[in-house]
Amino acid sequence: MTTWAPFAIGHGYHSDVRAGENTGKERIAVIGSGNWGSVAAKLVATNALSHENIHDEVRMWVFEETLANGEKLTQVINKNKINVKYLPNVNLGVNVVADPNLENTVKDATMLVFCTPHQFVESICKQLQGKVNPNAKAISLIKGMEVKPDGPVMLSKLITKHLGIDCSVLMGANIANEVAMEQFSEATVGYKADTSIAKSWVQAFATPYFHVAAIKDVEGVELCGTLKNVVAIAAGFVDGLGMGNNTKAAIMRIGLKEMIGFSKLLFPTVSDATFFESCGVADLITTCFGGRNRKVAEAYARNGGKRSFDELEAELLGGQKLQGVLTAGEVFQVLKARNWEKKFPLFATVHKIAIGHLPPSTIVDYDNESAQKLHRNPSVGVIG
Amino acid sequence: MTTWAPFAIGHGYHSDVRAGENTGKERIAVIGSGNWGSVAAKLVATNALSHENIHDEVRMWVFEETLANGEKLTQVINKNKINVKYLPNVNLGVNVVADPNLENTVKDATMLVFCTPHQFVESICKQLQGKVNPNAKAISLIKGMEVKPDGPVMLSKLITKHLGIDCSVLMGANIANEVAMEQFSEATVGYKADTSIAKSWVQAFATPYFHVAAIKDVEGVELCGTLKNVVAIAAGFVDGLGMGNNTKAAIMRIGLKEMIGFSKLLFPTVSDATFFESCGVADLITTCFGGRNRKVAEAYARNGGKRSFDELEAELLGGQKLQGVLTAGEVFQVLKARNWEKKFPLFATVHKIAIGHLPPSTIVDYDNESAQKLHRNPSVGVIG
Repeated sequence: MTTWAPFAIGHGYHSDVRAGENTGKERIAVIGSGNWGSVAAKLVATNALSHENIHDEVRMWVFEETLANGEKLTQVINKNKINVKYLPNVNLGVNVVADPNLENTVKDATMLVFCTPHQFVESICKQLQGKVNPNAKAISLIKGMEVKPDGPVMLSKLITKHLGIDCSVLMGANIANEVAMEQFSEATVGYKADTSIAKSWVQAFATPYFHVAAIKDVEGVELCGTLKNVVAIAAGFVDGLGMGNNTKAAIMRIGLKEMIGFSKLLFPTVSDATFFESCGVADLITTCFGGRNRKVAEAYARNGGKRSFDELEAELLGGQKLQGVLTAGEVFQVLKARNWEKKFPLFATVHKIAIGHLPPSTIVDYDNESAQKLHRNPSVGVIG
Repeated sequence: MTTWAPFAIGHGYHSDVRAGENTGKERIAVIGSGNWGSVAAKLVATNALSHENIHDEVRMWVFEETLANGEKLTQVINKNKINVKYLPNVNLGVNVVADPNLENTVKDATMLVFCTPHQFVESICKQLQGKVNPNAKAISLIKGMEVKPDGPVMLSKLITKHLGIDCSVLMGANIANEVAMEQFSEATVGYKADTSIAKSWVQAFATPYFHVAAIKDVEGVELCGTLKNVVAIAAGFVDGLGMGNNTKAAIMRIGLKEMIGFSKLLFPTVSDATFFESCGVADLITTCFGGRNRKVAEAYARNGGKRSFDELEAELLGGQKLQGVLTAGEVFQVLKARNWEKKFPLFATVHKIAIGHLPPSTIVDYDNESAQKLHRNPSVGVIG
């Protein structure tokens, strides 16, 4: 409460609504403040100001860092309303409050937006157990899954399990900097069952430049967001090998088919139609042409696999984490455990290339025994 | 018969099989010799040499031109096996014979590959009436449709109507120069009913680098190939306006949904699954990132619509024809005739921009009344 003071600068902002008041309104907290988390805060902050049923203040949990000039990241954000480290030059909104204290961030919130690297979700949830409003609802913007001994667990399910609250997901065309620049784009909310919850999340995120559609397929939407990063690694390999758009499109298509097949095997309720939404084909396109997984994979292939993903990630991403390689490893664990490796040769090959067991060229090398399974028999034939 | 003499250079080429012999084998003719037609000739020529049941000679009809040095195009192709005008530096195969005489090209053929600009198909078919083996089968590689007073006619249907023979289609990732360089890619054959015909076409076209799958949905496959060019025009506008990958992916996704909706309204037998094949999402990606429709539309938008498509086409394409603008006009006629304009706002907007009735920026301008229909209501909502 200390750093944010309301001052009216349009957007329907009302100075008579004080932070911390119990107004009966929804109150949104964003957990995470990386590149996409910061953009998410900007989106919901805009809507918090313009919708009467949402409290103006949006609290954002920031993993505290000390900047080169000695200032704390939260202090700089609260002073300038700019996340200088992860989303420079973009005003997040006067009503965004950076908070280094996780529990304080969520304590009054009724709507929790999760947007942290996926490897930290479980520990964050454990820290938040018993600290969250039991009537709150959550939404996960995180790509990835946890692989447990008894199978894969989607992050939305993990959040529900630990916190006992409903959890939807928001996926879609997520090149954060383009959304931050307010270029037209779309996203998909996947929800479990309750349409009023779906409507709340659409209201919280949708703007004239960011169109949000909600569909009742939380697993399908979440798996789109998760698995597309594996395909983006494959697309990056194709780029790094200097191949053309035909080859890249073919690899993306094969990847999309594996995304659909894998999702439906895990969750038979997943619908084909989900893959025609923004979270499906559109996000796949965006990620395979503009995303960071593609970028690092391109560099990996260009270096013939001689420099590790970890090294290239550190060099190219300036502190951002690469999800695709982690996800490929997690997917591969599922493939091994369920004996599905032959069903999903592209997913398996991406993992094997990423860990150095196959050269990058095998992503399209049909003479290679493993990669051959990627493709139909060369003569293919009649499938329908 | 005069210019092609067999000489053995590998590929299973057999010098004892003479052109013109009645061997009971399939004999392939390619009608058209543009960029993609030349690549098609190269593909089938490879297979003609390697499959015993296909006659070695592939005859290709060339619309005769006199080159700058005074030589005839057919003479140069037959001398060097290179189409210097439309596919330079690529050897078509020793067994490709360029023929300036349309009737002579087809007279012994049992498999006719149509690959001309779509506006010439009807006159070519009329010229060929009664000149084609009645047991021959055709395949169309042409994107486009004819709009007749009583509705749209797919080119495959037009060919069947005029020549009385079965006509399949081959669509897919068709950046001709990449296929010519033997980069890995995929394609889809759409066939009517007879799987033996489908198998023949797969055999004629499939190579280790060009994978072909056949599906029983000729209209769906053909409409994919046709309509994607309209979406590519939209994608080119987005590029020309300097927007990012998010916006482009969103426009492509909306375009894909309109492709599916339009196809299914025209032909209720069209399957959603077709759009996950190479002819669907993969070709859409290829065309929206690498094709000539995109390229000219980008230039059009960059010039603010002040230079016509005809002028830019002449400047940028070196004699190749632009299909997307023609198709957009034909699609628009269908939309008007059937009162479907409101169902397909992206298709309608592309046409209106292309003819100068709307500025290029309206492709994503949701304040514009017409373009607004492109998108869901800004707040969107719950759709599933």
